[in-house]
Amino acid sequence: MITDLPPIDHARRVAAMCGGASGTTLYTDLADMRWLTGFVGSNGWAVVRHDELIVGTDGRYGEKACEDTAGSGATVIVEHQAVALHERLVQVLGTGAVGLDSSSVSHAVWERLANAVHLVHQPSPVSVLRRTKDEAEVARIEAAAACADSALAVVEPQLCGMTEADVRMELEYQLRLHGADDRSYDTIVAAGPDHGARPHHAASGRTIIEGDTVTIDVGALVDGYHSDMTRSWVMGEATEHQREIYELVSVAQQAGLDTITPGVAARDVDASCRQVFVDAGYGDWFIHGTGHGVGLDIHESPYHSASSAEIILEGYVVTVEPGLYRGGFGGFRIEDLVLVTKPVNGTGHRVLTHSPKRELN
Amino acid sequence: MITDLPPIDHARRVAAMCGGASGTTLYTDLADMRWLTGFVGSNGWAVVRHDELIVGTDGRYGEKACEDTAGSGATVIVEHQAVALHERLVQVLGTGAVGLDSSSVSHAVWERLANAVHLVHQPSPVSVLRRTKDEAEVARIEAAAACADSALAVVEPQLCGMTEADVRMELEYQLRLHGADDRSYDTIVAAGPDHGARPHHAASGRTIIEGDTVTIDVGALVDGYHSDMTRSWVMGEATEHQREIYELVSVAQQAGLDTITPGVAARDVDASCRQVFVDAGYGDWFIHGTGHGVGLDIHESPYHSASSAEIILEGYVVTVEPGLYRGGFGGFRIEDLVLVTKPVNGTGHRVLTHSPKRELN
Repeated sequence: MITDLPPIDHARRVAAMCGGASGTTLYTDLADMRWLTGFVGSNGWAVVRHDELIVGTDGRYGEKACEDTAGSGATVIVEHQAVALHERLVQVLGTGAVGLDSSSVSHAVWERLANAVHLVHQPSPVSVLRRTKDEAEVARIEAAAACADSALAVVEPQLCGMTEADVRMELEYQLRLHGADDRSYDTIVAAGPDHGARPHHAASGRTIIEGDTVTIDVGALVDGYHSDMTRSWVMGEATEHQREIYELVSVAQQAGLDTITPGVAARDVDASCRQVFVDAGYGDWFIHGTGHGVGLDIHESPYHSASSAEIILEGYVVTVEPGLYRGGFGGFRIEDLVLVTKPVNGTGHRVLTHSPKRELN
Repeated sequence: MITDLPPIDHARRVAAMCGGASGTTLYTDLADMRWLTGFVGSNGWAVVRHDELIVGTDGRYGEKACEDTAGSGATVIVEHQAVALHERLVQVLGTGAVGLDSSSVSHAVWERLANAVHLVHQPSPVSVLRRTKDEAEVARIEAAAACADSALAVVEPQLCGMTEADVRMELEYQLRLHGADDRSYDTIVAAGPDHGARPHHAASGRTIIEGDTVTIDVGALVDGYHSDMTRSWVMGEATEHQREIYELVSVAQQAGLDTITPGVAARDVDASCRQVFVDAGYGDWFIHGTGHGVGLDIHESPYHSASSAEIILEGYVVTVEPGLYRGGFGGFRIEDLVLVTKPVNGTGHRVLTHSPKRELN
């Protein structure tokens, strides 16, 4: 495990939230709750009201919640029965308006709470702040990216002849041997003309053979923070068509990276990659968005898509991941994770993923 | 990977659902969708209307959705843009009433859909059917349980001197070496007086030493189906108090298992374990429920708790997992996974988890 990470200053975050809070805000998103309070668990809520922070959870997490939230100054409520925990929440929320992000609870939970308190939809203030990473967060994401680089360096030379599932197993084992707490997400290993054509293929018992396109999408988790990276190869000598497609993905990915600087529109990141493919006549081989924010969640705002209205700002950590896919051919994706920085000589980002992008044989 | 599993008959499930369907039902829960259609992905929906089954997903899963749902006879809709997929869903749902389980979508998604179609809350019919496992499902759960038994047998003799995190890493690696697709959930390794007192402790860098209570909660995933099992030990020679508490957990767990037969109330399973602890004066050391259903979800209905109104029926697969925990002492939990069967000589279950429950030294 990686132990020399700078501490996260939850007290500062809480002070910023409480200072600006005019009413009562309820958080039920687990990543929002972790960011604000430090509490890590699968069930709970946080309430910010005036200068108070209150965290509620169930008996499985009572001891842990007290320890996790020590730095945030939260008051912790523990109830072993779900009904009792709900009643305590209603009591804490009181009679005034309560802001809650309607995307962070099920409709059933919203309805039940709305019967007892005055709920108002409010986009989560924490989820907006979470987009901008501080130094302690960047250190964790960078450490996670380094674990994935190291794991891939061990496994990459042995790909041909392994099954997709064995590659995944070895990669995820290596992530931890190199200090990661866990994988960032279910590692994608997609080989050959059928599986390679699926951006989110689940690794199978298929053996990787000469001539296959191979795409590996692998990230690590360090103290709650994710990394995200994809590399692609051809096993053995590439065909002309494989070279052409790989080169297009490579050019598009560089074009995307070149756009990343504070102030750029997320849709322009997407457009810069997409245009390369459209110009070459392969626009319909690009069947997903160009990237997303990464932090306590593997997918978080902003999203680089044609319909996005978001602007990329300094301190954001985002992916740039164009790819081309076609059944019968396979596919390639190249993805880097970048920190958006103050611009120097016109470019405003630092790449956090360092695995080499191989030239095809 | 485990390859000789009996096939799952999605066509039969679809026929049963469509035959009984008087209106239109929308499914957004991913496990419901998988159970009914065979589609495995992180985004999508299924609609059952009259004799039709329609599955919608995004571009990442287009090829996969067609292959996965071949056995169910679903019509597959693929849209690369989220907005377009939403519009197709609205079109498919039409103007009549649409049943949707309000616990399976966020309030934001519900509101957006409700603006376009006539949504009515309806507890998911599929989630009720999913409680009763067929032979193909039991085969998967049993295979998963066997993987966890094998993995634990390899790692258990080496616990003392390892860190919690290394035990987790080796267990999860061994799960796959023994054929599992993955872990069933983040493996819990909780050692010593502080961590052992937390039922859902996340494995840390703490080294396991003589005198520690150690609790390991480990399961495997096979073709989407989970297993779930917990064992506890004392490292080296146990103290009198440790023996007393372990014996109580052991007796309570057997008492719980003894209740499992078709027709028993879930709350009586809970009460049978809880009473053992209350009688011994340790009622407040038992800080969670006694068990839950297991299948495509690691936690699914029914839940064994004091407030449950559910009845256990033949074909259910459920856990029985009482435990005692206290800061400064540590804790023990013993958990088995059982299939509810026709009663023979008064007992109506078959235990699927076979790792030995050690006597303390």
